[in-house]
Order: sequence, then structure tokens, then C-alpha cells
Amino acid sequence: MERTERLEAYAAAVQEALERFLPAADDSRARIRDAMRYSLLSPGKRIRPVLVLEFCRVAGGRPEDAMPFACALEMIHCYSLIHDDLPCMDNDTLRRGKPTNHVVYGEDFAVLAGDGLLTHAFSTALSSALPPERTLAAVRTLADAAGVDGMLGGQSVDVQNDGRLASFDALAEMYAMKTGALLRAGARLGCIAAGAGEDALAAADRYASAVGLAFQIRDDLLDLEQDEAIGKTTYPALLGVPASRARIDELTKEAACAARFFADPDFLVWLAFYLAGRDV
Amino acid sequence: MERTERLEAYAAAVQEALERFLPAADDSRARIRDAMRYSLLSPGKRIRPVLVLEFCRVAGGRPEDAMPFACALEMIHCYSLIHDDLPCMDNDTLRRGKPTNHVVYGEDFAVLAGDGLLTHAFSTALSSALPPERTLAAVRTLADAAGVDGMLGGQSVDVQNDGRLASFDALAEMYAMKTGALLRAGARLGCIAAGAGEDALAAADRYASAVGLAFQIRDDLLDLEQDEAIGKTTYPALLGVPASRARIDELTKEAACAARFFADPDFLVWLAFYLAGRDV
Repeated sequence: MERTERLEAYAAAVQEALERFLPAADDSRARIRDAMRYSLLSPGKRIRPVLVLEFCRVAGGRPEDAMPFACALEMIHCYSLIHDDLPCMDNDTLRRGKPTNHVVYGEDFAVLAGDGLLTHAFSTALSSALPPERTLAAVRTLADAAGVDGMLGGQSVDVQNDGRLASFDALAEMYAMKTGALLRAGARLGCIAAGAGEDALAAADRYASAVGLAFQIRDDLLDLEQDEAIGKTTYPALLGVPASRARIDELTKEAACAARFFADPDFLVWLAFYLAGRDV
Repeated sequence: MERTERLEAYAAAVQEALERFLPAADDSRARIRDAMRYSLLSPGKRIRPVLVLEFCRVAGGRPEDAMPFACALEMIHCYSLIHDDLPCMDNDTLRRGKPTNHVVYGEDFAVLAGDGLLTHAFSTALSSALPPERTLAAVRTLADAAGVDGMLGGQSVDVQNDGRLASFDALAEMYAMKTGALLRAGARLGCIAAGAGEDALAAADRYASAVGLAFQIRDDLLDLEQDEAIGKTTYPALLGVPASRARIDELTKEAACAARFFADPDFLVWLAFYLAGRDV
């Protein structure tokens, strides 16, 4: 299979599974049900679920064992976007060209839909048919990645400082939490679903850490080109554009190197370059 | 021990454990950490954790096995109050005589603190040292009780209908989700912590269902006395005051009867009367 075809096949499988995992609430709860569906089923690249599914594959697992964790992770990502877009946060009215959740369903239901997706992420991961120890390890990974030592911690550092951080280290730490934590969780969840050992988990972590930071620096560069980073601490603001580009290249090579722990790493290597916005 | 003393001893033990279970985020995340602490450690009766601890006791379990679940449940209750109080929801500025979370920390951090407590509830329950099957059963109970088939579903029915429901059955169903789900989860979690069987779980469920509805009808009656129920569908509005009072008495007796499944039910019987606002 071509790499872009595999990416699309994964995204299509995730879309179908997300629809299946959403709660079938009756009409008395139509509004929260519809608000949850609206954001979760809005098309996307599904990068985090793709990491879960591909790491499960390269670690020798079955896709059906990874899918509940893949969908749970996407629900957590989706809830964070709904709450981030709220008027009291970033006050965004458009996301990927569509009105944001609170624009369509109101602020009250955007808060509730985000809460619903976060809660349902755990229900979805808990629906795993894997042995209890493995399911528990996966649910712990999700909770750790989503919480104040992970994504939410990064988000709160960002909001608390209004995007202005005191040092390069503080910025790197914020990125490792805000975007890195869920990507690392994706790679880890795939390994857990496959029952892989500590060495595989460590390689997955190196891969996702490098890919996550490269992805974030690329985002900073795009913001800079579009004048959307004014007054914010970013990689290019601290390091300059050429050094930022060089750092992306280094990180992408680190990710490729980590991927080669696994027997069939081609797609992961391609994905690292793809996410960093580089040709292979 | 006197019953009120036991209630206070439970509340004090829960307070100490909540403090211990809160994440020790560093100063870069001071604001979300403090916002979570502010609401979670604000004194309260801790009724839901008390149910977890007492059902664990009567089912023959150890309090230390029940405590992570008790605290997780309180975190979920607390997150729901923070989000309910938001300007886009009930817009409440005071709770138990103290300024609400968003008044002190801003709407952005009230959203984040609620998200943080919901996520950390799962981390806390997952910190259980019980066998994996039992921990998984507890975490499933939490997710089910908090989600769109539980508390959040009831909340969304209430908001969607602006407090006006079409029938007695719709009101009863909304109450069973909005306040009943977490109380039933409390009773159930205690039994799970003790490793109790299906008969005990069924008795716990009957007890908590009856107590939950009695508590809610009492709340309706108090709202009526204080003219706070205008335009809302409530038990006394549908049944009248005398029939509502009679229903509380019936439910309290049902709860007492269910409690007698257990060998030492005195505190549970007293608690049912206490929560319904009646003398024993």
C-alpha cells in the first residue's frame, strides 16, 4: 500500500469506529449527543489515532485491539479543541473552515460536549477486550497524558503566561506537555495494545517526542509566515528561522532512527517527515 | 461512635486524602493547581465519599481500599459544580458562601480546573492497589456514572429543557441521572472496593436510588419554600406538597430496608433519614 493510501485508510477506519463508539443517547439528550458528534466526526487527519494503530501494527498487534484506545485518544484531543475554542479561552469561531462547537450549540453545550467527550474517552478505552492489566495500563496512559502533568498542564502554562514564556527551556517543557503528551500517548497506546515490552515503549516514546516537537516548531514557523505569532514566545523567535528549520531536520532524523527499532518502520519514517512538512 | 461523629470522621478522613491525592504541580502550573485545590478542598459534607467508605465497611472491606474511589467520586462531583456555576451555565457567583471558581480564577481557569478534576478523578481511581479486575470495575463505574448516560446526561436534559420537563416520568429520569447516578456510583464503589458480590451491589443500588430521589424531592421542597423553583418542573409542582413529603417517607423506608441486607446497617439507615431531612 502507498503511504498516503495507508494514512487515508487509517483515517477512514477511525472515522467509522468513532461513529460506532459514540454514545447512542436518546432524544431527551439530543443536544449534547449532537454537539459531541459535530466536533468528533468533523473530518481530520486523525494523527493521534494513526500513531496508535501503526505502533500496534509494527509491534505485532491486531488493529481491533488498538481501536478503542485510538478513538479514546481522539476524543480527548477533540474535547481539548472544543474547550480551547470557547469565548473565555481562544474565542475562535472557525476550526478547519467550520463554525466552532459553541457557535453552533452555544457555550453551555460546548462546555458539556467537551466534558462528555473527555468522560466518554475513558468509557471507550475501558471497552477494550484485552486482559485487565493491559487495559489498565492503557487507561493510565490516557489519564496521565490528558492531565495536569500532560496536555492540560501545557495548556494551563500557555494560558497562565498568555503565550509569553521566560526561557527556551520553559517553552520546550510547555510544548512537551501541550502537544507532545497526546502524541507520546498515541505511540505508547499502540505498543500497549500489542503487548510490546519496555524496549518498544522506549523507542515509541523517542519517536513521538521527536515528531511532536518537530511538528510544533513547524507550526511556529507557519504562524510566523502568517503573522499569527506576534507577542508569543516561539522557537523561531528564540532561535531564528534557519536554526529552527535545522532543528526540525534533526528531530525528524531522530524519529526515523527510533522507528527503526521496529521491523517494518517505513510508514513511521515517512510519517515523521510528512508531519514535519518535509519531503522524504 | 455516635452517627454524627462517624459522619464527621469520614469527612475529615476524606479531606486529608483529597489533599494527598491532588497533583503536586510546580509553580509553572500554579494557577490550575490552585483553582483545582480551591474548589476541591472547600469544606463539605462529602456525602458521595461517605457512601463509598460506609458501603465498603458494611461489605467487610478496608477503608484504604475504598479511599481512592471515594476521592475520585468527589473530584467528579466537584468538577460538575465548577462547570455548572460558569456564566454560560447557571452563572452562580456564590457556592456555600464562598465566591465560585470562575469569580476567583477567571472563566478560563474554571473551565481548565473542572477539566483537570475530571481527568484527575480517573488518575486517582487508577492509583488503587486492588487487583486489576476490581480497579477496572471501579473505573468503569465512575465513567458510566459521570457520562451522558449518567450525571452529564441528566445535566444536559435539564439545560436543554431549561428546567421544564414534559412529564413526571421525564422528571424522575432526569433526577435519576443528574443526582442519582453519582450517589448510586458511591454505594457501588464501596461494594467493589470490598469485593462484595452481586446481591450486595443490588442492595447498594436500591439504597442509593431511594436516597438519591428522596434527597432531590427534599431539595425541590426547600426551593419551593424559598421561591427558587418558579417556572421549573419539580416534584411538589407535579404531585403537591403533601404527596411529595409522603414520597420522601416511603423512599427513606425503602432505603432503610435495602440497607438491612448488610449485617451492620445502623449508620446507613440513619444516613437515609438524615439526607431526607427527617429525624430518625
